[in-house]
Amino acid sequence: MDPLAEVISAIDAVDVRFPTSLSLDGSDAMNPEPDYSAAYVTIRTSDGDEGYGLAFTVGRGNDVEVAAVRALVPLVVGMPVSDALADLGAFSRRLTGDSQLRWLGPDKGAIHMAAAAIVNAAWDLRARREGKPVWRLLAEMPPEELVGLVDFRYLQDALTPGEALDILRRAEPGRAARQAELLDSGFPAYTTTPGWLGYSPEKLAALAKEAVEDGFTQIKLKVGADLDEDVRRLRLAREVVGPDVRIAIDANQAWGVGQAIEWLRPLAEFDPYWIEEPTSPDDVLGHAAIRRAVAPIKVATGEHTHNAVMFKQLLQAEAIDVLQLDASRVAGVTENVAILLLAAKFGVPVCPHAGGVGLCEMVQHLAMFDFVAVSGTQTDRVIEYVDHLHEHFVDPVRIERGRYLAPVEPGLGARLHTESVARYRFPDGPVWQRDAVVVA
Amino acid sequence: MDPLAEVISAIDAVDVRFPTSLSLDGSDAMNPEPDYSAAYVTIRTSDGDEGYGLAFTVGRGNDVEVAAVRALVPLVVGMPVSDALADLGAFSRRLTGDSQLRWLGPDKGAIHMAAAAIVNAAWDLRARREGKPVWRLLAEMPPEELVGLVDFRYLQDALTPGEALDILRRAEPGRAARQAELLDSGFPAYTTTPGWLGYSPEKLAALAKEAVEDGFTQIKLKVGADLDEDVRRLRLAREVVGPDVRIAIDANQAWGVGQAIEWLRPLAEFDPYWIEEPTSPDDVLGHAAIRRAVAPIKVATGEHTHNAVMFKQLLQAEAIDVLQLDASRVAGVTENVAILLLAAKFGVPVCPHAGGVGLCEMVQHLAMFDFVAVSGTQTDRVIEYVDHLHEHFVDPVRIERGRYLAPVEPGLGARLHTESVARYRFPDGPVWQRDAVVVA
Repeated sequence: MDPLAEVISAIDAVDVRFPTSLSLDGSDAMNPEPDYSAAYVTIRTSDGDEGYGLAFTVGRGNDVEVAAVRALVPLVVGMPVSDALADLGAFSRRLTGDSQLRWLGPDKGAIHMAAAAIVNAAWDLRARREGKPVWRLLAEMPPEELVGLVDFRYLQDALTPGEALDILRRAEPGRAARQAELLDSGFPAYTTTPGWLGYSPEKLAALAKEAVEDGFTQIKLKVGADLDEDVRRLRLAREVVGPDVRIAIDANQAWGVGQAIEWLRPLAEFDPYWIEEPTSPDDVLGHAAIRRAVAPIKVATGEHTHNAVMFKQLLQAEAIDVLQLDASRVAGVTENVAILLLAAKFGVPVCPHAGGVGLCEMVQHLAMFDFVAVSGTQTDRVIEYVDHLHEHFVDPVRIERGRYLAPVEPGLGARLHTESVARYRFPDGPVWQRDAVVVA
Repeated sequence: MDPLAEVISAIDAVDVRFPTSLSLDGSDAMNPEPDYSAAYVTIRTSDGDEGYGLAFTVGRGNDVEVAAVRALVPLVVGMPVSDALADLGAFSRRLTGDSQLRWLGPDKGAIHMAAAAIVNAAWDLRARREGKPVWRLLAEMPPEELVGLVDFRYLQDALTPGEALDILRRAEPGRAARQAELLDSGFPAYTTTPGWLGYSPEKLAALAKEAVEDGFTQIKLKVGADLDEDVRRLRLAREVVGPDVRIAIDANQAWGVGQAIEWLRPLAEFDPYWIEEPTSPDDVLGHAAIRRAVAPIKVATGEHTHNAVMFKQLLQAEAIDVLQLDASRVAGVTENVAILLLAAKFGVPVCPHAGGVGLCEMVQHLAMFDFVAVSGTQTDRVIEYVDHLHEHFVDPVRIERGRYLAPVEPGLGARLHTESVARYRFPDGPVWQRDAVVVA
């Protein structure tokens, strides 16, 4: 190895938490009072370059996530930067394949989310060095290089390297036109802002009305805590938005399989577009049973689907109509490339999960890459949008008339303002010193 | 609350690691050099009682596991001991259901294994106070109390509370006779000692011969790294043990679905009894496809099956012939009661995963409870046995003529000698000071 080569010199992880439970932003049937948080990662190189990534959590346990990131750091510190960035598939496998650390997963839970934070930071670093937003970096890669990112070991029975290559090659001729379209008119969003469970009917109605006025054609309501309440909220929302705006509903895993089917019956008259997370995120067969029973209501899941093997099965079992990948649940951009290819193979639209801390900023790149270079369409594709915490990001998302504008700044978008990190650092940041009695 | 009531006053977690990689004990296709480790947990009460549990890992990452235990501790410290022990179902749900911490799972990975360690320690505490080994504590519980331990939320589509009650009531009349049989003649074991991948052919042959002479009627070999090597090792083992001793083989997740089917074809002539972990532990549908293709070789899995919802699906999809529950992968004794009931409903034999640190000591209680009060049979049931690290336990397993003798000491068996904890504590114990250069 060249002793003067630039290497990954350090990876920092910081516990950053926002006291969102104070306002009940983000409240749902399973998450009554989240404090949206991030294990925030900075990759540093010996030449002084930096890349930024994060794993999103909802408060307690963010320290465990930071510990998991730190356990992975020795696996890649010291690597030549050029090797790491030239093959981010191998880089990802190095993080997820350690023979001792994989016992904590494999490919799931805290250790996998920690890999996501580091993998995302590496993609951010590469994109910054190439001067491109990640969506464009991906969308301009040769199909062979994209296929080379995928770990096919457990996926080949559903998607072969040859099929993946075919999907990407078929989309190649239209890449330039779609890239221009994206830069011109963006990508459709839907908003979850009106629908948190902790909001009053008045607040729900006002925010739903505002969403439609702002140009959104889909909103989402949280359900699953109280059936009568769900009927009232859904009726109210439908009255406010009218028949043409899609209303998705989200149970956040509150139900068993039979219970989901029962609960959805009286909600059907309000024409919900999809039911999200009706049951345990691990229950592939349960989702399939629910889907068969509740059609034409679509079934959506993915924010807790912990890896590509689970997505593979959701697709094989015809368990979902909508695939909701997440930026930091699976091992970051690399594993999400595999998931986008699986979705394309099975013809299922990808509508990423977002909100939280920095998820909107990150997932937009995946949806836009999908449009330009994989599925080639925006039909029935929407990216979730939630309008909080964006002010903490250096390159926040831009929303206009219900659409995400394509990011033009280099990177993945997860870089936080230095002042935000200092202020919300847990437990020593000034926000947590002040609010400690109220929130802890 | 009575201010004088006994409460859970503290829960300690210690990082204990044994440098097993030095001898290649425990080496397989995915774990070339594990250092068998435990996040070792002690529950303490305000009256000075103690209960012991652990989560097993294979080295790096054991610190993350300890951090995960510590994140859960505040959820139960301060609880009245009588409340905690009277309803260990509610106690377990308190640990796995925290609305913020469950984001790291839910019910999977490091945070779920941490819950296992605490739940197991609570069962140990209760059993010590009642003066019974855990198997007998469970086997003498009324069926209604056992059913009350189960969280049916995500299981009802496969097993209702009524069905669970029926299973337990059907087994009730024979409990006393089977308990006497168990105390008299124990429970069958099989041994993995001969089969580690790092062992030479000579060592394999000698240990296989010794196992048969010691009375074992089943051994297990690790496979999956090199096909020619596997053929040679399996042929050798078959020659040594003869046609009547069962030889299980274990790929430790090395293969994809199609690859597993191909790899097993040339091994079939040596009549392997089961193939264990042929592919990703998450791949329910993959296991089902492999099982259909490789019959009559049985398919076994479970040591990485992360919760009861996954076991439910393995059973629903007819993906396994043998269910290998683990003591600390799912949330301890409580979730394993649900898994035993699911297995009984589907008529699939449970052959627990063991070895590691303290797994033999713990899982024997589950298999014996199953025999006495759930399935009511030992037919095709065997508990894995590996002959190392038992000397560190206060109440080690006792094996005679290839059978586990029923434990008679109160508790779950996971209590380590104080001197072992002090000596193998990582990174400050004397063993790690001495071996630091070689092992780290």
